[in-house]
Amino acid sequence: MRREIGLDDIENLSLGSAFLGTGGGGDPYLGSLLCREAISKCGPVRLLSVDELSDDDCVFVAAAMGAPTVMIEKLFSLEDQDRAVTALEGFMGRKASVITSAEIGGCNSMMPVAYAAMRSLPILDADGMGRAFPALQMTSFNIEGIGCTPMTIADEFGNSVLLQADSGQKAEELARPVVAAMGASACMSCYPMTGAEAKRGAVPATLSAAIDIGAAISGESGAGLPLERLLRALRAHQYYRKAYKIFSGKIIDVEKDTSRGWVFGRCALTALEGDSSAEIAFQNENLTIHVDGLLRCVVPDLITVVDLETAAAIPTERLAYGQRVAIIGCSAPPHIRSEKALNIVGPKCFGLSEEFSPIELIAANSLTT
Amino acid sequence: MRREIGLDDIENLSLGSAFLGTGGGGDPYLGSLLCREAISKCGPVRLLSVDELSDDDCVFVAAAMGAPTVMIEKLFSLEDQDRAVTALEGFMGRKASVITSAEIGGCNSMMPVAYAAMRSLPILDADGMGRAFPALQMTSFNIEGIGCTPMTIADEFGNSVLLQADSGQKAEELARPVVAAMGASACMSCYPMTGAEAKRGAVPATLSAAIDIGAAISGESGAGLPLERLLRALRAHQYYRKAYKIFSGKIIDVEKDTSRGWVFGRCALTALEGDSSAEIAFQNENLTIHVDGLLRCVVPDLITVVDLETAAAIPTERLAYGQRVAIIGCSAPPHIRSEKALNIVGPKCFGLSEEFSPIELIAANSLTT
Repeated sequence: MRREIGLDDIENLSLGSAFLGTGGGGDPYLGSLLCREAISKCGPVRLLSVDELSDDDCVFVAAAMGAPTVMIEKLFSLEDQDRAVTALEGFMGRKASVITSAEIGGCNSMMPVAYAAMRSLPILDADGMGRAFPALQMTSFNIEGIGCTPMTIADEFGNSVLLQADSGQKAEELARPVVAAMGASACMSCYPMTGAEAKRGAVPATLSAAIDIGAAISGESGAGLPLERLLRALRAHQYYRKAYKIFSGKIIDVEKDTSRGWVFGRCALTALEGDSSAEIAFQNENLTIHVDGLLRCVVPDLITVVDLETAAAIPTERLAYGQRVAIIGCSAPPHIRSEKALNIVGPKCFGLSEEFSPIELIAANSLTT
Repeated sequence: MRREIGLDDIENLSLGSAFLGTGGGGDPYLGSLLCREAISKCGPVRLLSVDELSDDDCVFVAAAMGAPTVMIEKLFSLEDQDRAVTALEGFMGRKASVITSAEIGGCNSMMPVAYAAMRSLPILDADGMGRAFPALQMTSFNIEGIGCTPMTIADEFGNSVLLQADSGQKAEELARPVVAAMGASACMSCYPMTGAEAKRGAVPATLSAAIDIGAAISGESGAGLPLERLLRALRAHQYYRKAYKIFSGKIIDVEKDTSRGWVFGRCALTALEGDSSAEIAFQNENLTIHVDGLLRCVVPDLITVVDLETAAAIPTERLAYGQRVAIIGCSAPPHIRSEKALNIVGPKCFGLSEEFSPIELIAANSLTT
């Protein structure tokens, strides 16, 4: 059992969380730079399993919020993150005893590790999505009835906002335009929880999962080609084990529209041989993939575009014409796949007309392997 | 010297603040209903002159924020106002000892009176504009270097936001989209001040001025026709004494665009006799008036559309085709007319190409009376 996150883990965490980010969460490379710097300076971060939480622990989410297309140009700093967390601590009248991630995805699984290092606090081996989602209310915490607010948002100029909303949805509606006014990216702290609440609401062991998946991609663990190693690691995992290579080919078109604080768009692909084609729709994260007009995977199950040779995930904002890629789909953790979860993270929550169907069921019906 | 505001003053305060609101500040009729109810229940409100402030008084602004076109359909309640003020009190760790108005204009000069009644606190005979303006940073407080934040915003569902910004401009940029997300109107509290700061930053005696101007319009004071009474009252006042009837005629076109939380637009008029025409541009408040293509008055000087018969001001959101009106222009208080004030409330702050020129200078140059 992994007990800490050190410098040697950062590369794998970066690769694995980019995969689990399903296109979103912000470029993990930038988060990895913050992590390296913080761990070099402050030492490894203690990794706390959900079982190890005390009921009266004070668990704070540290996170970035915004459009990934903007995040790659407007960098975060731990000072901004610290202003968000300490503002929330001030309001709550309690100090954080544990830091956790809102989502395992790109920057948002790295930033909390870097911040925990800076504060010499443990990081919870868990998150609130088991993947990445584009909106604040789309968390396992919210699914379990834990409040998103009070929450704080801070920018690089020292501006800060404290929100109290009557629902996670309303918190999202109020926070998103604030983040847009801050330049479409900012740091935040939200879902302040007791240890008991975090035990009930978090998706456990996802930071470990990201590191393990990253180790498979990098070749540190497993044998064979990168894509084979990746699929094998996914299939060995408790959550992601229904894993499929849905499509491989090259990108022939990408549409991106950065508006309302998100990046919306579509990515069209064609097979390298034959005339099969695919289309992915995304809102920060990949939401659906159709192959030759048939739905093959739909949110909350995971859809990730990976490089055909290296199996490294390509985030939404880096999708480009001509890239040769494979599309990997896999099952989401049960926490975000239940009937009550689908009311918060299901296809209709993204305005999609598709119904959710588990990837293994779609695969069984279409005889895909 | 007026010592309190009672039920008998509400009608005149409503008429006068609608005039000083120069089209904005929200319909005073709605504010007057709140005032009547609160004063009936809690008694008259003590009117405190700026000279009577103690240096360590704690002066809080109570205000509504939003698009007047929305405010007439989505009503305010004192409970929402109370949530905003008490949230700010909680953050500051101090209780308000005096309530003040951000602007003398429509609803925003009535609401604070009603709220002061509810809290049994005195209301300051002053405001932060000496008229109404469409943006948070456009105050005499800000001109004097007093911070707009911390500020709070509350809606009717119990949602609330606390902002801390590095400038009044940034507070506006963060608050406006929040108010838009709350449905384009909400209650707020901002510019928390000591008594010493309020003495330095406020425009004194404007609540009294509104009541006096209202008394002239209603006929309670003065003789002659309503428009004559109004002009005489303005010309007797320390701030507004350069007062002119710029145009009279009927409205032949109104354009309104409610966007980004404001109402922007233009109003075209034609003379009842002859072929003279006029055009007013507004952003919540009236900003410029041109007669036959020549600029006759420009913000921060006051431009108000009044009914030709009754001299009652017509707010922006009630301008309509066919109304017979006079356009009254008058000088702004010196607090918002200085060179440093024009950097915050001058024409360029509204994106206007016109330079500021005092109304009396424009009038002298064009031989208008």
